[in-house]
Amino acid sequence: MGKTRKPTGTVEEIEAAFYDALSHADLDSLMNLWADDEEIVCVHPGAPRLVGHAAIRAAWEAIFERGGIHIRPVQTHAVHNMLTVIHHVIEEVQRGPNEPTDVHILATNVYVKTPHGWRMALHHASIAPGAIPDEPFHTPVLH
Amino acid sequence: MGKTRKPTGTVEEIEAAFYDALSHADLDSLMNLWADDEEIVCVHPGAPRLVGHAAIRAAWEAIFERGGIHIRPVQTHAVHNMLTVIHHVIEEVQRGPNEPTDVHILATNVYVKTPHGWRMALHHASIAPGAIPDEPFHTPVLH
Repeated sequence: MGKTRKPTGTVEEIEAAFYDALSHADLDSLMNLWADDEEIVCVHPGAPRLVGHAAIRAAWEAIFERGGIHIRPVQTHAVHNMLTVIHHVIEEVQRGPNEPTDVHILATNVYVKTPHGWRMALHHASIAPGAIPDEPFHTPVLH
Repeated sequence: MGKTRKPTGTVEEIEAAFYDALSHADLDSLMNLWADDEEIVCVHPGAPRLVGHAAIRAAWEAIFERGGIHIRPVQTHAVHNMLTVIHHVIEEVQRGPNEPTDVHILATNVYVKTPHGWRMALHHASIAPGAIPDEPFHTPVLH
């Protein structure tokens, strides 16, 4: 598929490359970030789940026909071990003038360590009510 | 907190215990299934995200005031390594007579291996349109 360079780097760099590929509607770069596993899962807000490379690629291709999506992940919470990083982010989306401001997007991004480096195994995005909160639901970290 | 027995077993057993605790509105058993990490995340359908034990417990407690929830996870897709299991399931919910049948619930359940055994690190549930599909978005597994 993609002829772009295979991505390497930390999970933070892979995640930055993911949102960068979205902003440039760069399908090959985007798909290169995913693990080589047909059980990978992608859920777009309010849409059915997609399993495997072909289904995930086709959905992003359809989205990219309308151009890139400018998203900044904020308020990241992470659980990690040596082989997996679970990021939960709020997606700060650059909105058009007619788009709603009374909802925000929550996303779970899971990365697994593969022989080729860190790769995305799951992206699950969904809509939550209200504007982006100022972390009101966060219990203070005590350690 | 909970005085119930600490859960042990496979990820499949921990997941079964999770949905069993939901069905019995058993808050202590439910919370014992989570990793001892203040970065754990729980997202209920259409609700803001919850981070940490106290916030997650409080939300389930409020839900359980209306009784247990009878959910059967179906169509599980899994990505796993030695330290983490990512389950993506469709939640088949036992509905009341007035509840909608034109949506279904998608859930990401992530389990991490801890010194106490497998524990839940993330539960992200969201609503997708339509009745439960018959895996129409699944690319056939070739290996």
